[in-house]
Amino acid sequence: MGSIWRRKTGITLYGESHGSGVGAVIDGFPAGVFIDNEFISNEMKRRAPGQNDLVTSRKEEDLFIIQSGVINNRTTGAPISIFIENKNKRSKDYEKIKTKLRPGHSDFSAWLKYGGYQDYRGGGHFSARLTAALVCACSFYKMYLINKNIKITSHIYSIKDMKSRHFIESDFNKEGIKERYNDSFPSLDKSFKNSAKKLILDIKEKNDSVGGIVETAVIGCKGGFGDPFFDSVESRLSSLLFSIPAVKGVSFGCGFDISEKLGSEANDEYYLDKSVKTVTNNNGGVLGGITTGMPIVFQTAFKPTPSIAREQRTVDLDENKETTIKIEGRHDPCVVIRGIPVVEAVAALLIGDYYIEKEEKGWITD
Amino acid sequence: MGSIWRRKTGITLYGESHGSGVGAVIDGFPAGVFIDNEFISNEMKRRAPGQNDLVTSRKEEDLFIIQSGVINNRTTGAPISIFIENKNKRSKDYEKIKTKLRPGHSDFSAWLKYGGYQDYRGGGHFSARLTAALVCACSFYKMYLINKNIKITSHIYSIKDMKSRHFIESDFNKEGIKERYNDSFPSLDKSFKNSAKKLILDIKEKNDSVGGIVETAVIGCKGGFGDPFFDSVESRLSSLLFSIPAVKGVSFGCGFDISEKLGSEANDEYYLDKSVKTVTNNNGGVLGGITTGMPIVFQTAFKPTPSIAREQRTVDLDENKETTIKIEGRHDPCVVIRGIPVVEAVAALLIGDYYIEKEEKGWITD
Amino acid sequence: MGSIWRRKTGITLYGESHGSGVGAVIDGFPAGVFIDNEFISNEMKRRAPGQNDLVTSRKEEDLFIIQSGVINNRTTGAPISIFIENKNKRSKDYEKIKTKLRPGHSDFSAWLKYGGYQDYRGGGHFSARLTAALVCACSFYKMYLINKNIKITSHIYSIKDMKSRHFIESDFNKEGIKERYNDSFPSLDKSFKNSAKKLILDIKEKNDSVGGIVETAVIGCKGGFGDPFFDSVESRLSSLLFSIPAVKGVSFGCGFDISEKLGSEANDEYYLDKSVKTVTNNNGGVLGGITTGMPIVFQTAFKPTPSIAREQRTVDLDENKETTIKIEGRHDPCVVIRGIPVVEAVAALLIGDYYIEKEEKGWITD
Amino acid sequence: MGSIWRRKTGITLYGESHGSGVGAVIDGFPAGVFIDNEFISNEMKRRAPGQNDLVTSRKEEDLFIIQSGVINNRTTGAPISIFIENKNKRSKDYEKIKTKLRPGHSDFSAWLKYGGYQDYRGGGHFSARLTAALVCACSFYKMYLINKNIKITSHIYSIKDMKSRHFIESDFNKEGIKERYNDSFPSLDKSFKNSAKKLILDIKEKNDSVGGIVETAVIGCKGGFGDPFFDSVESRLSSLLFSIPAVKGVSFGCGFDISEKLGSEANDEYYLDKSVKTVTNNNGGVLGGITTGMPIVFQTAFKPTPSIAREQRTVDLDENKETTIKIEGRHDPCVVIRGIPVVEAVAALLIGDYYIEKEEKGWITD
Repeated sequence: MGSIWRRKTGITLYGESHGSGVGAVIDGFPAGVFIDNEFISNEMKRRAPGQNDLVTSRKEEDLFIIQSGVINNRTTGAPISIFIENKNKRSKDYEKIKTKLRPGHSDFSAWLKYGGYQDYRGGGHFSARLTAALVCACSFYKMYLINKNIKITSHIYSIKDMKSRHFIESDFNKEGIKERYNDSFPSLDKSFKNSAKKLILDIKEKNDSVGGIVETAVIGCKGGFGDPFFDSVESRLSSLLFSIPAVKGVSFGCGFDISEKLGSEANDEYYLDKSVKTVTNNNGGVLGGITTGMPIVFQTAFKPTPSIAREQRTVDLDENKETTIKIEGRHDPCVVIRGIPVVEAVAALLIGDYYIEKEEKGWITD
Repeated sequence: MGSIWRRKTGITLYGESHGSGVGAVIDGFPAGVFIDNEFISNEMKRRAPGQNDLVTSRKEEDLFIIQSGVINNRTTGAPISIFIENKNKRSKDYEKIKTKLRPGHSDFSAWLKYGGYQDYRGGGHFSARLTAALVCACSFYKMYLINKNIKITSHIYSIKDMKSRHFIESDFNKEGIKERYNDSFPSLDKSFKNSAKKLILDIKEKNDSVGGIVETAVIGCKGGFGDPFFDSVESRLSSLLFSIPAVKGVSFGCGFDISEKLGSEANDEYYLDKSVKTVTNNNGGVLGGITTGMPIVFQTAFKPTPSIAREQRTVDLDENKETTIKIEGRHDPCVVIRGIPVVEAVAALLIGDYYIEKEEKGWITD
Repeated sequence: MGSIWRRKTGITLYGESHGSGVGAVIDGFPAGVFIDNEFISNEMKRRAPGQNDLVTSRKEEDLFIIQSGVINNRTTGAPISIFIENKNKRSKDYEKIKTKLRPGHSDFSAWLKYGGYQDYRGGGHFSARLTAALVCACSFYKMYLINKNIKITSHIYSIKDMKSRHFIESDFNKEGIKERYNDSFPSLDKSFKNSAKKLILDIKEKNDSVGGIVETAVIGCKGGFGDPFFDSVESRLSSLLFSIPAVKGVSFGCGFDISEKLGSEANDEYYLDKSVKTVTNNNGGVLGGITTGMPIVFQTAFKPTPSIAREQRTVDLDENKETTIKIEGRHDPCVVIRGIPVVEAVAALLIGDYYIEKEEKGWITD
Repeated sequence: MGSIWRRKTGITLYGESHGSGVGAVIDGFPAGVFIDNEFISNEMKRRAPGQNDLVTSRKEEDLFIIQSGVINNRTTGAPISIFIENKNKRSKDYEKIKTKLRPGHSDFSAWLKYGGYQDYRGGGHFSARLTAALVCACSFYKMYLINKNIKITSHIYSIKDMKSRHFIESDFNKEGIKERYNDSFPSLDKSFKNSAKKLILDIKEKNDSVGGIVETAVIGCKGGFGDPFFDSVESRLSSLLFSIPAVKGVSFGCGFDISEKLGSEANDEYYLDKSVKTVTNNNGGVLGGITTGMPIVFQTAFKPTPSIAREQRTVDLDENKETTIKIEGRHDPCVVIRGIPVVEAVAALLIGDYYIEKEEKGWITD
């Protein structure tokens, strides 16, 4: 399988990049939640292509249809089905490279698994196009969390080897959060932002692509969520983050850097400020797999977009011989940018699911 | 929950560091597999404390009892229950710090979740002692994989900011694998090894601790395992790795470094060598969530051991006031070393589970 | 939740009787399976209303759209999404009884769970309309099984207190199976058939409804499927059967009658006929939760359709007072008839899933 | 698999009838629940053999050891592991019939699945001995429910073709419930009780066995638990009941009899008595898969004990030829009696799990 996620609630994904569309079904979402269609549209716009010159020029309108589970803008408690039609398809781009393996893509591994029956057009079900459905579905959870004043915010921590800095607490004020939300290239450091943007455009010019790291924080989440061992918050969240195409690394708190620290530096000491808090947050708001009440901070490393218009060595499966490939079409020079709303989406899914589990209503006659 | 892992087969963990013992139940393991008790003992010895001066001096005999599911050294197909008694407990060490939160440990988050009823002695169920049961249970999967000539090998990639190098293909010869298996400080570089060991001893001397990164490879695993999205190999494996206490980061292939590469560098080009192979393995043997047949390579970042005999700021929950804590007792200066067999154990669990799913026997009368 | 079923493969249901439509997503279905749209249509026609005077006169065209997972009539291995638009809705019928609880329906329990936000029109998500999507999705499994010569056949064992007889082996010949498949009132006994049909029409005349029992057999399923305890074939199958609206009882083999037998009568003795077989099949092809290779036989008891055009005592939730209700609209006098393809659908789902798990292909380069 | 049950909490079973013992692990049970060892012992005594002449004369002390998850009689929130040693084994009884299939047992289907590696002694893991662990584990849930004043009560509805009567509301008073709890042959009708007991003894005399039906009610469970479709209360409960060895039928409310009713008889009309109630309870407290607040009533049909000391036709797998078998040893003439606490146990598991999900505590600092 792979297309069903399930904890207290569940999400099922389907669709292909060049089929009739992509969709998702949410199961177990609570009844009575107000649904703001504009908010959903906006979340989807953040992920949509064609916004500026840093992302692909391919345009997708991404109109979503809610097929079930919502009446008069309120959820009913029944499964919520959303569907997004594919409108701007250029399947012909893929016809000529049908049997040539695109380096860095899933073509070869999918072929091993599905025996050649998989949809080869634009990656088929493996396409990042599926994240349109994911972002749309997860926006329901995001709305749920916003009502509880829980916020999710991200910035671009690095592009290639250019690094910005990690979040500090003062970044979590209302204005900063809002600003980053509306910025397609959110960052904590102006000079980094400018250089990084320039770098991406340079690389795009050279028909190449580049990776980077997104840092994200969930602010306002209570302590006590999660479990030891197999269902630790880190296990659950990393599992969702690695569902996102192109993600190759996930870390928490001060990230891989924690492995470079001494215990006396890495340990988050406690103090009292009404409730118990930690002086630092090197563990990223999770200890023993359970939230501490501090911001949940994590880093997601994206590899460079594998689709590049450069000649690369490959194999043609049909003719069983070596050849070369050059991937035409309209592609993102850097998936990090459009990856941000997707990272936030799955974080909202998990944290929203924890809250739904805890706060489930019902029992009117009690 | 948190103590049940389940895919085709399942593992349930239980126990506490200072209770009667720790144990695990394996469900769905195939019938007829030969069980080599000596192999299991050896896996457990690799994880056991008290081996040398780089790890804790605490001794645990770690004798396992197989309570069910095995007759005459062959599995029966019924659940396999293993139990490991706790013999060397010093619960008194914890009595005096009972209500003081140990920085970097799960004391506070567990208290939020369990309301003070959790076992506070040595972390209780959150203790890394549980990994004794995990390693024991996963050794069944390791035996299963060895029969198929699938090997799992690791080395210490870094200690604090000292770095060795990444795996290259020539490291995967029989001798190298064997050597690393028998070395409690496996590494690819002698000078790194010496300096890193020295560093750990220095830090131990100062009552401090240090983190590091383990790199692991699964060699010989076929392509075609895994799924897109929520059940990608990276999702599943990272989820298991983050179950291990002290793990704060997981990455695949060339790791977080992949975010620093250009697409033209990161893409693994294809060539033909009897079957289809990739020239490089920057994606760590997984594309689109599915194995490619190349070695599955991943990095696991451990934080420094949180238990240090240094004064740290904390809060006493009982008196609701700030205080300090100094953690006496016998602790590892660096959990990376004893973490290696645990990392390998969960990798064996996942890959073994894939193979069991694929190769399940039965239907004698067919 | 409730709308996701998951074992090796998974099905997610969504939709409401008076919303835009109903649908289902199949996850994990194998690649390369030929899809016969005519077969699917036929399965759906068997369940569709408006076929004859024994069922509701409400017409539903039930055209299904395959939105993903199939190209050129072959499955791709990606999730298969099917959607069935609701065309013939009479939502106004429900407006006037909106807050009155319909006896025998889920109105009250749904109201307790969803706090009044549930879709009240025709039962909303609780409607048997959802079984259109279920039958459509499960027909994929049925096709898979037909390729393996596994057949599912049913007959009406009883209507009210009129009883036919149980299956015997000679009922399982090709002709009998085909005949029952094409008969909207399949039965093993002509005189029972005539009297039972007459009884239903009589009861319909009186604005009442009636229940009955369906007996089903899966023929050709190998032995060795299933598990002891929580995942016994009986556990798994009963769980699916009780998902079907109006089902209140499930039994296996000679059914509840087995409780009236002596051990010496109930035990199925063994004999040799090339392979091992049992003389009788009182256990319905399942022992210890695992299939024996004998036909899997089970009974499903349906209650009478709760929607009747008779005055019944009830409560108006809005006014919080007692009142009466009379359910107008077009309803089946006996759900047993249209229940047959649904019962067969879920049986196909489970048995198909077992086979898919066992026979999964892949590994082309092996 | 088959030995892991999982919803909000989870239970893992292990062990064999003639191995070292049987056990269970409960995962996700809430912290802080008081554990009454005497209550657990009593639940186990109700299931234990050797109580009177209606059940097997085999004695099992069934002392349970709690290995984890409980400190000072309070649960800690960590997995609770219980173990019950096997003390009174007569494995030799099975040595001579090792390769002969016992009719009505799982020997043949297990052999198909496990290829002959399964433990043949007394059914191994398939033995009803496992229900000792199940009853022990579920008694934790029963204690949890008793604190909420939710009661589970059963009576023997039928033995062979002798029938008592169904529950009526007045059976649910405190005294009736207590009396039935302490009676090893609880029934609603004295003359039925006497005749049925006599019948069992007669049949025992003839080296035969007999089946029967248990009726059970859960009283005090709130409305609003459960889900539509795949996770309906009936789906979940039937699934658990069919886990119990020898169960072949499950029905709800007025049971299979509901299929003999008219809609006007079967529908449960509503009235107001402070809250909304139903006049009758033909649907057994569940509508649309969700509890209504009325007693949850269900019937469980047990087949006759398959082990009988009578000559039966069978096959010897080793010699691949037909032969006969006569099962010596000490067996229950009627499993219905000892089945009662097991039926109640799994009902407590499900309903307890619903309550735990709903009422989970935590968040001390809130």
